[in-house]
Amino acid sequence: MAKSPETQYPVQVIGWAAHDSSGHLSPFKFSRRATGEHDVQFRVLYCGICHSDLSMAKNEWGWTVYPNVPGHEIVGVVTEVGNKVEKFKVGDKVGVGALLASCRNCDMCAQDLEVYCAQKIFSTGAIDTDGNPTHGGFCDLMVADEHYVIRWPENLPMDAGAPLLCAGITTYSPLRYFGLDKPGIHVGIVGLGGLGHLAVKIAKAFGAKVTVISTSASKKQEAIQKLGADAFLVSSDPEQMQAAVSTMDGILDTVSANHPIVHLLNLLKPQGKFIMLGISEKPPELPTIPVIMGRKTIAGSAIGGMKETQEMVDFAAKHNILADIEIIPIDYANTAMERLKKADVKYRFVIDIGNSLKSA
Amino acid sequence: MAKSPETQYPVQVIGWAAHDSSGHLSPFKFSRRATGEHDVQFRVLYCGICHSDLSMAKNEWGWTVYPNVPGHEIVGVVTEVGNKVEKFKVGDKVGVGALLASCRNCDMCAQDLEVYCAQKIFSTGAIDTDGNPTHGGFCDLMVADEHYVIRWPENLPMDAGAPLLCAGITTYSPLRYFGLDKPGIHVGIVGLGGLGHLAVKIAKAFGAKVTVISTSASKKQEAIQKLGADAFLVSSDPEQMQAAVSTMDGILDTVSANHPIVHLLNLLKPQGKFIMLGISEKPPELPTIPVIMGRKTIAGSAIGGMKETQEMVDFAAKHNILADIEIIPIDYANTAMERLKKADVKYRFVIDIGNSLKSA
Repeated sequence: MAKSPETQYPVQVIGWAAHDSSGHLSPFKFSRRATGEHDVQFRVLYCGICHSDLSMAKNEWGWTVYPNVPGHEIVGVVTEVGNKVEKFKVGDKVGVGALLASCRNCDMCAQDLEVYCAQKIFSTGAIDTDGNPTHGGFCDLMVADEHYVIRWPENLPMDAGAPLLCAGITTYSPLRYFGLDKPGIHVGIVGLGGLGHLAVKIAKAFGAKVTVISTSASKKQEAIQKLGADAFLVSSDPEQMQAAVSTMDGILDTVSANHPIVHLLNLLKPQGKFIMLGISEKPPELPTIPVIMGRKTIAGSAIGGMKETQEMVDFAAKHNILADIEIIPIDYANTAMERLKKADVKYRFVIDIGNSLKSA
Repeated sequence: MAKSPETQYPVQVIGWAAHDSSGHLSPFKFSRRATGEHDVQFRVLYCGICHSDLSMAKNEWGWTVYPNVPGHEIVGVVTEVGNKVEKFKVGDKVGVGALLASCRNCDMCAQDLEVYCAQKIFSTGAIDTDGNPTHGGFCDLMVADEHYVIRWPENLPMDAGAPLLCAGITTYSPLRYFGLDKPGIHVGIVGLGGLGHLAVKIAKAFGAKVTVISTSASKKQEAIQKLGADAFLVSSDPEQMQAAVSTMDGILDTVSANHPIVHLLNLLKPQGKFIMLGISEKPPELPTIPVIMGRKTIAGSAIGGMKETQEMVDFAAKHNILADIEIIPIDYANTAMERLKKADVKYRFVIDIGNSLKSA
C-alpha cells in the first residue's frame, strides 16, 4: 500500500480538484515528490481546459481517480532540475501535456509513440507508478521526468500556446500519420471547438485545402475569415453535402457528442481516411458498404508521442499557430467547465494560474 | 431505350439465371455482343460460386438487375479476339472476375484501381454501358474487353484456380495495400469459408504468422493441419481471446453474417488494422475508445484492380495456391446455393460448365 502523498512527498502544492463525479472543483492542497535525478520541477503559469478535463472530472469514461486535479495543457518556468537532467535548466520555459510516463521498453516507446504504450500514465486522473493519483495542471507546481517535458519555443506565447499540448498535438499527429499533411490534400474538419479550430490552422499550415463541416451555419464566416478555412459545409444541408460527395482525402472528426458518420464517410474519395478524435458515449454505426466499396479507412488517434509533440510545438512557433483563447482566473474554473459543456467558448479556456492561484 | 439483347446482339449464349429475389436459378437463353475490336470472347470451362452470387441472386443488397446470370470467377479458353487485341489469341487460357468495365479516365483507373472507379461495371447483376444487364459466368460463352481479362498461368489448374478471381484477389489486395504482406507480420483471419481459407494460404505465402479466428472449435485441426495456419482461436472462448489481446498486426474479417467486432479489435496491437471484407446486413457498432486509444484502423477492401489481379494469379501459380473446391454440374447450382447459405461447403463450389452445360 502506498503511503499518502502528504507523508511520502515533501513538496507542498496548491491546486483545485474534483472530489466526485459531480465534477465540482474546489481548492485542494496536496504534495508532490522531490525532484528526482531525471526530473524537472516547474512553476505553472498557464493551463488550458480541454473537454476531456470535463469528462475526467465527471468520471464520464469510468476510470477517473479522485481527488482529481484536472489540466493537461500545462506551461510554466523551471524551478529545479535533477542532477541527470540534460535538456533543461532553471528558468527555462517548458510544457507538459497529457502524458506523464510510459514503460520506455516496449515497441511503442521504442518508436517514440509513448501514448500507445500499454503502461502509459496520464498526467491527470490516473494512477502513478507509486500508487498515488496523478494531479494535473490546475495547481501551482508540476514535476515530471524530463522525457515528458517539452522545450517551449522562445517566441511562442505561453497562454495561447498552452492548448497546443493537447488540442494541437491531437490534430497534428493524425494529419501527419495518415498522410494528410501535404499541399493540395483536401481535408475536412468536423466540429469547430478547441480541437477543430486548431486543426484548421495546422492543416492550412501544411498547405491543405480545408473544409469545415459543422451543424451550425452561423460559424461559416468565422471559419473562413478568421481561421482561414477554404470552405464550409452545413452538415444538415443535404444539397451542400451531396455536392461535396467524394471530394475529400481525409476528415478529422473532432466531435465527442454522439453523431452518425455515414454522411461524412460519403464525403471521402475512394481510399479516403476518416479519423475520429472524440470519444463518444454511444458508439456510432459502422456502415460496411461504403467502407468496403471505397476502401475507406476509419481510424482513431490519441494525442501524440513526445518527439512528435516537440516537433508540433516547434512547427506552431514557426508558423505562428496559436489557439484562440479566453483567459480566466482559477476561481472561474467551475463556470468555465459549465460553459465548456455547452460549447460556449471561442475556442479554449486557459487559466492564468500564475496570476490567480496564490500559494496559501 | 436499349434494344433487347436478343435483337441487338448476334451471339447466342446458354446459361442459368435467377429471375426474381427467390434467387432460384433455371436455364436461360440470351445473347452477347459480337466480339469488338478490343474484345476477347471465350468458352467458359469453370465458374466458382461466391457468397455474393447468392446475395446478388436474392437481391440482398437491393441493386440486382434481373434476369441475373450469376458467376464472377470465370475461366475458359479464348474462341475469338478483336483485331486490336494485343494480349490474347485463340486457344489461350483466360479468366474474368467481378469487374467488366470502368471509365479508364479517373484517378482510380489511372492508378490501376478500376474497382474503385465510380463508373465501374460488375460482370454480373449490373447495367452495362448499353443499358442491358450484365450476365456472369453461369453460361457457356463470355465476352469482355481485354483490359478486364486475366492471362491464366499455364501451370495453374483452371477448376481449383477459378476462385482466385474473386476470393483470391479480395484477400490478396488488402494484405498488400495495408502492409500485411511481410514475413513475421501476425495476421488474424476471421471466418474459414471461401475467402478465409484462401486468405490463410496467401498470408502464409507472404511469410506471415497466421491465426484463424472462428466461432467453431471443430475447424481447428483442418485450419492448422490442412490449410497451414499457425494458430487457432475460438472467438467465443474468453480465455483464449484474452490471451491473444494486442498480438496481431492486422485482421481480415471475411464474415458477412452480422457480428460484433469489439473483441476482435482488442486482438490488434496499437496501430493494428482491421479489414472488413464481408458486407453485413446490419452495421456493427464502432467502438471509439479502443480505436482512438490504440490508433487502430478499421477499413474495407473490395476485390482488386486488374493489374493486381494478374499479379495475384501469377503469385498463386508460383506458390501453388489453389482453392479447396467441390466440383459440381450446373444442374446442382440451386442445391449448391442452399448449401452455401448454410456454409456447408469446403470451401468453394466450382461449376464444371464445360462438361455439364451443353448448348441446346
